Amino acid sequence: MSMAYADEGQWQPHQLPQLKAELKRVGIVLPAEKLADLTKAPLSAMLSLGGCSASFVSDAGLVVTNHHCAYGAIQRNSSAQKNYISDGFLAKTMSEELPAGSDSRMYITDKVDNVTAQVLQGISPTMTGKDRHAMVENKIKALITECEQDKAYRCSIPSFHRGMEYYRIRQLMIRDVRLVYAPSDKIGNFGGEVDNFEWPRHTGDFSFLRAYVGKDGRPADPSPDNIPYKSKDFLTISALGLKNGDPILLAGYPGRTSRYKLPEEIRFARDVSYPKRIAESQSDVEVINAATQGNPDAVVRYASVVKGINNGLKKTQGLVDGFNRKDIAAIKDEQDAEFRSWFSKNNPDKDFLKELDTVIASDMALTEEEFAWSVANNSELLRSARTLYRLALETAKPDAQREAGFQQRDVAFIAARLNRLEQSYMQNVDQARYTAALQRYNKLDAKTHPQGLDILLPMPESVASMYQQSELGNTAKRLAWLKQDAAAFLQSDDAFIKLAIKLHDIGMTLEERRKEVNGNLERVIPQYMQAVITWKNSQGKPVYADANSTLRVTYGTVAPYSPKDGVTKGPFTTVEGIVEKHTGKEPFIAPDNLLTAIKEKRYGVFKDATLGTVPVDFLSSADTTGGNSGSAVLNKNGELIGLNFDSTYESITKDWYFDSAITRAIHVDIRYMLWVMKEVDHADNVLKEMSVKYPIK
Amino acid sequence: MSMAYADEGQWQPHQLPQLKAELKRVGIVLPAEKLADLTKAPLSAMLSLGGCSASFVSDAGLVVTNHHCAYGAIQRNSSAQKNYISDGFLAKTMSEELPAGSDSRMYITDKVDNVTAQVLQGISPTMTGKDRHAMVENKIKALITECEQDKAYRCSIPSFHRGMEYYRIRQLMIRDVRLVYAPSDKIGNFGGEVDNFEWPRHTGDFSFLRAYVGKDGRPADPSPDNIPYKSKDFLTISALGLKNGDPILLAGYPGRTSRYKLPEEIRFARDVSYPKRIAESQSDVEVINAATQGNPDAVVRYASVVKGINNGLKKTQGLVDGFNRKDIAAIKDEQDAEFRSWFSKNNPDKDFLKELDTVIASDMALTEEEFAWSVANNSELLRSARTLYRLALETAKPDAQREAGFQQRDVAFIAARLNRLEQSYMQNVDQARYTAALQRYNKLDAKTHPQGLDILLPMPESVASMYQQSELGNTAKRLAWLKQDAAAFLQSDDAFIKLAIKLHDIGMTLEERRKEVNGNLERVIPQYMQAVITWKNSQGKPVYADANSTLRVTYGTVAPYSPKDGVTKGPFTTVEGIVEKHTGKEPFIAPDNLLTAIKEKRYGVFKDATLGTVPVDFLSSADTTGGNSGSAVLNKNGELIGLNFDSTYESITKDWYFDSAITRAIHVDIRYMLWVMKEVDHADNVLKEMSVKYPIK
Repeated sequence: MSMAYADEGQWQPHQLPQLKAELKRVGIVLPAEKLADLTKAPLSAMLSLGGCSASFVSDAGLVVTNHHCAYGAIQRNSSAQKNYISDGFLAKTMSEELPAGSDSRMYITDKVDNVTAQVLQGISPTMTGKDRHAMVENKIKALITECEQDKAYRCSIPSFHRGMEYYRIRQLMIRDVRLVYAPSDKIGNFGGEVDNFEWPRHTGDFSFLRAYVGKDGRPADPSPDNIPYKSKDFLTISALGLKNGDPILLAGYPGRTSRYKLPEEIRFARDVSYPKRIAESQSDVEVINAATQGNPDAVVRYASVVKGINNGLKKTQGLVDGFNRKDIAAIKDEQDAEFRSWFSKNNPDKDFLKELDTVIASDMALTEEEFAWSVANNSELLRSARTLYRLALETAKPDAQREAGFQQRDVAFIAARLNRLEQSYMQNVDQARYTAALQRYNKLDAKTHPQGLDILLPMPESVASMYQQSELGNTAKRLAWLKQDAAAFLQSDDAFIKLAIKLHDIGMTLEERRKEVNGNLERVIPQYMQAVITWKNSQGKPVYADANSTLRVTYGTVAPYSPKDGVTKGPFTTVEGIVEKHTGKEPFIAPDNLLTAIKEKRYGVFKDATLGTVPVDFLSSADTTGGNSGSAVLNKNGELIGLNFDSTYESITKDWYFDSAITRAIHVDIRYMLWVMKEVDHADNVLKEMSVKYPIK
Repeated sequence: MSMAYADEGQWQPHQLPQLKAELKRVGIVLPAEKLADLTKAPLSAMLSLGGCSASFVSDAGLVVTNHHCAYGAIQRNSSAQKNYISDGFLAKTMSEELPAGSDSRMYITDKVDNVTAQVLQGISPTMTGKDRHAMVENKIKALITECEQDKAYRCSIPSFHRGMEYYRIRQLMIRDVRLVYAPSDKIGNFGGEVDNFEWPRHTGDFSFLRAYVGKDGRPADPSPDNIPYKSKDFLTISALGLKNGDPILLAGYPGRTSRYKLPEEIRFARDVSYPKRIAESQSDVEVINAATQGNPDAVVRYASVVKGINNGLKKTQGLVDGFNRKDIAAIKDEQDAEFRSWFSKNNPDKDFLKELDTVIASDMALTEEEFAWSVANNSELLRSARTLYRLALETAKPDAQREAGFQQRDVAFIAARLNRLEQSYMQNVDQARYTAALQRYNKLDAKTHPQGLDILLPMPESVASMYQQSELGNTAKRLAWLKQDAAAFLQSDDAFIKLAIKLHDIGMTLEERRKEVNGNLERVIPQYMQAVITWKNSQGKPVYADANSTLRVTYGTVAPYSPKDGVTKGPFTTVEGIVEKHTGKEPFIAPDNLLTAIKEKRYGVFKDATLGTVPVDFLSSADTTGGNSGSAVLNKNGELIGLNFDSTYESITKDWYFDSAITRAIHVDIRYMLWVMKEVDHADNVLKEMSVKYPIK
C-alpha cells in the first residue's frame, strides 16, 4: 500500500474538503468545496472522451484535449489531397467543422452517487466467489438500467478499492463530436515515438473539438441540423504564466493504478507478467514488420497497431527498468509488515491475512492461464468470430441477464469495432501474427495452458489455409454475422467461426473461474482495504482509491527532477529547444513558419519573463496515469494553464508506487498553445471564442 | 578574435589591476594588487609540475595537485605486492614519503620580466623569416643563459600574442619531489576514461607531493639527506563551503589556446587538421589493440599510451563536434569583418591584411607537410635514433649556437626520455605501429608529402627486418649512443640509425622552412595583435594573451549549464552519486570503506547545508585549458576550495572560442578531499599539517 503524502493522490472530488489544509499548504486558492462540486466549474467543465480527458473552454461546447486524443478524428478526415495530419486543420467558421467520427463520444459527469449499500445488499460472506460476483453484477446492471432510462446519459458503476465501495456515475453522452482545430502533427506529435515518455519534450500535444447536440439541447446522433452544445461552465484560460514551484491542479479521468497491491502481486508482475508481455510484444512487432516490409500500404495500415504495441512495450520496459532501479517490492514489504503487525494487534481474526494471501495466489495462477489463452485473441478474424458467436448466444437471453458488454446497449459499439477493423487489417499480416502467436503458445510452460486447449488449437502450418478459406476478412460479410443467431453459426463452414465455436467452452470456463476468483477478491480485498484505510486514518492520513477511469483531482507543483546526481531536468522547455531538435527528419521536423516565428523572436505576450522566450512543455509533480491525457492543468485559481499529455520514463512505476522525488507529469504550456494558434496557425477565431487572460505588456 | 567578457580570460598576474572593477563585480574580495604580486600568497604558493599545476598547502613544502598529475609517481612506486595505484598510498611520517621519480620537477615562478625590447632589439622588418627567427632565438638563448647563472633556477622566455611580447620567467626548480599521499585510483580516477570530459562527474582527482631541497635550502638532486622545502607562502584551506553563484579564482599554468586565430585557421583545423588527426589516432589505437591482444603484459605496458591517444582523440572529436554544434568560424568571420573594417578606416597600410593572409596560408600549407612528416615519429626506435643523431650533431657546436632543446641544459631530459621509453615499448607493437604509419603515409595526398621523402622511406613490408636487426630497443645500448659523436653514427649498421641519417636532411629542410614561416608569423602576427588590442582597448576592453604554459589567473562563478533545452547539469555532484554510479566493474568501483561511510552518512563537518550531503565535484565558469590540471580553485578571499581537473565535453572548443553559456571547468570540491582523507583514508597527519578553516557545527 501507499502513503498519501506530498503530491501523491488521485482524489475523488467529494474527498477534496478533507484535504483543505494540504491544498492550502500547496498554495491552492480555489476553495476545496468549490473544487468538490460536480455542478460547478471547474469540475463541471471537465469531460471524458473515453480513454482521454478534455475540458470545455467556451460556452459553445468548444473542447480542448490532446492532439493524440483527437488523432482518430484528424485521420478520418484526411486524405492524400487534404492531409490534415501533416498540414493541420482549422475550421474558420463553425460550418467548416468536421465530423470526428461516428464512434466519437464526449462524456460529462453530472452525478455521482454512492450505491455501495444497494450493490452489496444481500451479499453474504459464505457465498461462492462466482455467486457473489454474479449477484453484484446483477445489482449493478439493474442500477445502470434505472439510470439510463434517459437515453441522454450513459451510466456506470465502477468499484472503488477493488469492491469496497461502488459509485454510480451518470454522464451526459455527446454523440455528435466535431473537429475544430488541430495543429500539424509536426507540432502536435513533434518528437513522435522517439520522445514518447521522454524529457526534454517539445510536443504541442493539443487540439480542439466541439460538442454538438440536437436543437432541443439534448445529445443526438450526428446530424447537420445539430447545434453547438451550450456549455454554461467552461474554463477560463490564464496566459499570465507560471514558474518553478507554482501550485497546480489537474482534473481528468485516470485509467488504472495498482497502488494498494500486495508485495507478492508486485513480484508476480515484475518477474512473470511483464517479462512475458515484453517477449510477446517484441515478437509481435517483429512479425508485423517482416510481413509489411516493402509494402507501403501495409506499413501505413499497421502503423497505429505497431505504435500501440511499441507504446505498451516502452511502458512495460519502463516498469521493469523502474523495478530494477528501485526495489519497490522491498518498500512494499516494509509497509506490508507494518500493516500486518498493526492488523494482528487490532484484529482477532488472525486467519484473514492467510485467506487474503490464498485468494491472491489463486488470482495470480489464473492470470498465467489467461495469458496463455490470449492466443485466442491474437488473430483478428478469430477474435471477431468469437465476439460474433458470443453476441449471438447472449442475444438469445433477456437483456438484463446477458453478460456485461453484450447487452443491447453494447451492440452499436461492437458493430463499430467490427467495422473499424478494416482500417488496420491485412490478411497476410494477420495470418503471420496468428501463426507466431500459436508458436509462442507452444513454447509457454505447459502447466499454464488452459485445460483441453492444446488439442483444439490449429497447427501453425494450417493457419494459411484457414485465412484463405475464411470470409470474415470481408467487412460486409463480417458485419452480416451481427444479425445471425447461434444456430446459423453452428452451420457455418467458416474456418474461424468453427474454431471460435470449438474454443467457446474453454473461454467460458476461464470466464467462470475468473468470476469465482474475482468474487473472492471482491469479498477479501474490501476487508483488507477497509483495514488499511482504518490504519491510515488512525495516522491522520486520508486514503484515495486506485484510479478506475472516473473523474479525479490531483494537485502538485511545477517541479524539475534529478534523473541522476548532478543533472536536473525541467521544469520548462522553450521554443528554442525545437530549433535545437529540428533535424528535418521524422520525427523532428518543425514547420517552417514555426521555425521562422522563433527565429524572428515573435514571442508577443507569450514570452516568459524568466525564460526570456516562449515555454513549450513543463513538468509537475501531479499524480497522473494513462487516461489523464488531455487533462486540464489549472493554476491556484482554477484557470487553465496547460494540458497533461505524458509522464517521464522514470515515472512509469508510479502505477505501483508514487515516488515523489522522481515522478513527473509532462504538460504542454497554454502559452505555447496560444502562441502557435496566434503566430503559426492564425487560429484567431478559436482564440477569440475562448476567455483568455493575457498579461499586460 | 575573441571578446573578453563574462568569465573569459586567462590573465597574466600583472594585468589583474586592470580588472579591478570586474573582479569586484564578480565578488572577489582579495585585492587585485595582492593577486598580481608574484612574491606574495596566493600566487607565490602556486607551482607548475611541467604540464600540470599545483600549490603549496603547508610551510613544509606540502603540495596538492591532481591524482592524474601524480600518477607517474604513484605508478613508479607500485608493484604487484604493494599496489599504490589500486590501494592508495599514505606516508604516515615524512620518512615514509617516496621518491616521485628522478625526472619529477616542481617549478615555482618567482620573477617575470618583460624582455620584449631586448628580444626584438635589432630586428628589422625587411629580414627574411628565417633570419628573424634565428635572431630572436639567439637573443632568447642569451637572456636565458644569463638568467640560469644560478643553477637553482630554470628560465624561459615564452612569446605572448604570438611574438608581440616576450617575458622572461624565472622559476625555482625543485628536483627532489616525493609522494606524500594519494587515494586509491578507485577514488582518484573513479569513472576513468568513460567519465573523461563528462558531467556528472565523481572523481576525487587529488594527491599530495612534497618539495625537498638540500640542507642549504636550495634545490638539490634527490638525496635522503634533503630536507622539506620551506614554503613560507602556502594556501589556507576553507571547508566552509560554497554554493551556486559563488565567485571563484583559479591560478595555474594553462598550456595552449588559439583564441585569436583567424577564421581561415579555424576552418583549416576543422576541415583538414582535426579530421586527419582523428583518422590517425583511431588507426593507431586499433593497431596497438590488435598487437597487444591476449598479452596482458603488453596491454599494461601500452595502457598509458592508449590512454593518451584516446584522451587526445576524445578531445579532437569534441572539437569537431563542437564546431558542428556551433559555427565558430562564422562567429569569427563576423568579428574579423568588424575588425578589418575598423582597421581599414584607421590604417593607411591597406596591404597589411593581405600580407597577413598570405603568411597564414603558407603556415597552413607547411602544416600539411609536417603532418605527413609525422611518419618519422611514429616509430619509437626511429624517433630515438633521430634524437640521438641530432644531439650528436648539435653537441659538436658551441652550446649557445645549438638548436633549442639540444643544449647542454637539455641533455639530462633527453636521457630521461630515452630511458623511460622502456616502460611503454614492445618490439612487436612498435613494429606494427610503424608499419601502419607507413601505410597511412602512402595514402595521404601526395601533394602533402615532403619533397624527396617517398623514396627514402622503407617499404611497409621491410619494417619487420629493421626491428629484428636494430639494437635500439635495448635501453643500455640506446643510452650508450648519447656519448657517441656524429662520425660514430655514420659508421653504424643499425637499421634505424641509418634511416635517421637518411631522413635528417629532409627534417632539417622542414625545420628551416618552419623557421622561415614562423619568422614571418612573428613579424606579421604581432602587428595584427597590436591592432586588435588597440581596437579592443578603444572599446574599453582589456586583452589577455593566448595561454602559453605560463602562470595565469582566471575567475568565474560556481555555475551549472544547460547542454540542451530543458536539461541542467551541475553545479554539484554528491557522494550519493558515487553509490549511484558504482557498478563494481571498472571504471566504476568505489572502495568499500567509502561506500560504507556514505551509507552510514558519516558526513561530519563536510556536509553541505543545501545539498544535505558531501559534495564531490563542481562546475565553474572559469577559463581553463590543458595544463590547468591541478590548479588551485580559490574563494573570494583567496582560500583553497578545490582543484581544477577537467572540463566538460561541450567546453572543448573553448581553446578556439570561449562560449560563456556552455563552457564549464570541472573541479573537485575541497570538502570531498578532506572527507576522503578523514573518513576513508585516515590521513590525519596530512590534514593536521594543513591550515584548514572548518565550519563550526
